[in-house]
Parts: sequence; structure tokens; C-alpha cells
Amino acid sequence: MVIINISSTKRTEFIDITSQIERVIREKEIEEGICIIFCPHTTAGLTINENADPSVRSDIIAHIEKLIPYRGHYLHLEGNADSHIKASIFGSSLSLIVKNKRLILGRWQGIYFCEFDGPRERKVYVKVLSG
Amino acid sequence: MVIINISSTKRTEFIDITSQIERVIREKEIEEGICIIFCPHTTAGLTINENADPSVRSDIIAHIEKLIPYRGHYLHLEGNADSHIKASIFGSSLSLIVKNKRLILGRWQGIYFCEFDGPRERKVYVKVLSG
Amino acid sequence: MVIINISSTKRTEFIDITSQIERVIREKEIEEGICIIFCPHTTAGLTINENADPSVRSDIIAHIEKLIPYRGHYLHLEGNADSHIKASIFGSSLSLIVKNKRLILGRWQGIYFCEFDGPRERKVYVKVLSG
Repeated sequence: MVIINISSTKRTEFIDITSQIERVIREKEIEEGICIIFCPHTTAGLTINENADPSVRSDIIAHIEKLIPYRGHYLHLEGNADSHIKASIFGSSLSLIVKNKRLILGRWQGIYFCEFDGPRERKVYVKVLSG
Repeated sequence: MVIINISSTKRTEFIDITSQIERVIREKEIEEGICIIFCPHTTAGLTINENADPSVRSDIIAHIEKLIPYRGHYLHLEGNADSHIKASIFGSSLSLIVKNKRLILGRWQGIYFCEFDGPRERKVYVKVLSG
Repeated sequence: MVIINISSTKRTEFIDITSQIERVIREKEIEEGICIIFCPHTTAGLTINENADPSVRSDIIAHIEKLIPYRGHYLHLEGNADSHIKASIFGSSLSLIVKNKRLILGRWQGIYFCEFDGPRERKVYVKVLSG
């Protein structure tokens, strides 16, 4: 298992971690298999989406904020109830396929760490399984 | 594959299954690997979120109910169309990492079975793969 | 890794791919293991939901459209910002369990390719891992 360290700089931010995940695959030298990416935080998540036009990420963040507003009526008193809800909607794990020692991704896909309660120091765990 | 039995007591309820999953890992005695958790129901899901303040779960449940109301205008006539929609939003499977014979979870993370159409008798399947 | 080709015929459409995935499992002749399904597109996703009453899928599609409308105020200028948001909400990967050479699914579960920006030619990748 490899740990990737991430420093977020805003409250809500999608951080591209594709190259770090690809480096893990390269260094493991696994020919064929799968790759599990896991986010150990309850106010952050993971997603795969467009890596070209950054306005796609802005649209996702803005729309999720509209559906699950920061300043809503919540019971949880730490001011980050919305972050927990967003984390569950996006999810904590991704499953990917490794082929010919490379991570399989679509042409426009990037892997993003979804910060919903930053800025914070965060981690992502990566596990590659051969087979 | 191990089957975990769950009895929900409310229509919507998040049930902590972390200790049952951890017991599966301990009994399998797998040093390193991954763990897939699968929900075989179409009106329930799985999520990972905060295990400390229970108001976080209440906030998630209340907000999802606001976005996808029980009494909405739906075509499906069994009175649980909202439960199906919620199930797809949360998802049916989780992928976790096993290291040193232990499930890797963040400090504040618990694994929850998300009941959206209870009370019912439910099952969750757990598969551990060594590697 | 096996590639499944999909032709969508509408802008938004859930296409049942269960039998194609089951055929992959049969042909691989793997006794026990897991199956990762991966969608390499950023305006489509994957979900598991009811395979009986088609009105369930109609309800999911209609409600997601209400929450994330096609004609909203988005920055991304290609007219498919909503499709990207929907793709992230549903997710790009599914993890399933294989037992006795068969895919484990609940009685009412089908596996769906979620088209959010069709009609298009699409692909889904399937990887089976023995163990």
C-alpha cells in the first residue's frame, strides 16, 4: 500500500492526483491487475471526471454546493455537515484496472481528490493487486 | 465470501457494520489484500462516514430525504421509488484495503449499511482477496 | 480485460449490461474472485438497480434530471455540464463478487450503463481477478 499526501488550499477543491497514481503503478511494475484508491477522510471523497476544461470541475463544485449548501440547517455543530454529506455522495473508494503496466483511463478522464472541508493536510491510500 | 445479516428497524436508517467487517478480516487471517463489500438490494446502499457524532448520520439522512422525498411524484407504484433512487446515489459496493491483517480505515470512519426501505431483513456480502 | 461495446440511442438512458458481464465471467471460468467494471467516459456512469419494473429507471432518470437539469447555468460551454455532474454522482466503477463461477447479484439487481450525453458509441471495461 502506498500513501499519497495531499495539501488542499480551499474549502472545496478538486485536486488532480492522476500522475501520482500512475507513478505508483509504474513503480510496482505490475503487468495486469487492479488498483484500489481509498480516501480515509469523512469530509472528502474521490471522483473521476474530465481532465481538459477546468470549468467542468467548477460546474460540479458549484452545483453540488447548490444541492448541499455549506450554510444549511444541520444538527452537526462543527460547521461541516455539508462536507460529510458531499463525501458520502461522491464516495471513498475507486476501483481501476491495470493493463500492460498502465492504469486504464479514458482519454478525457482524470482522478480527483474531492476536498469538501479544506484547507487541510490529507492522504489517499493506493493498493495494486496483480492478477 | 462471507454473508452478514442485518435487521433494520426503520424506513431509513444507517447501520454501523464496521465491527462485523473487521471480524471477517480477522478470521480470514489475510496479511495484505483488498476487501469488497457488496449490497445485494435495490433499495439499500453502502457508505463510509463519521463514526463519532451520530448527528452526522441524521444530517445525511435528512438532507437526502429533502433532495429525494419519500412522497414525490414517481411512476413506480410500490411506494419506494425514492428508495431506489437513493440506493443508486449511495452505491452498492465498497472497495477497501487490508494491511497487516487489519482493515484500513481513517480514524473517524465507520462502514454503514444504508437502509432506505425498511424495516427489513437484509444481507451484505464480504469478499477478501489476498495479494 | 474484456471490452464491452455499447450503442446508446437517447441523451439519457440506462442500458442493461448484466448479461454481457455474466458472459465474461462464464468465459473466464474463474471459480472464485472479484469483478471490476469500469466506465472510461466522463459523461456516463454505472449503477446497479432494479431489473424488473422499468418505471424504476424512468424515476431515477427523471429525478436526477430534476436535481441536475440539462438546461442549467453552467460554465462549461459544450452543453453537457449536467452530464459530467451526473457521471460523478453515479460513479465510474463497480466492484462485484464472483462465486462458483457466477456473478453474485441480488434477485432484483441488474447492472446498468448510465448514458448521460448520448446517443454515442461507448465502451465498458471488465476485469476479473481470481482468488
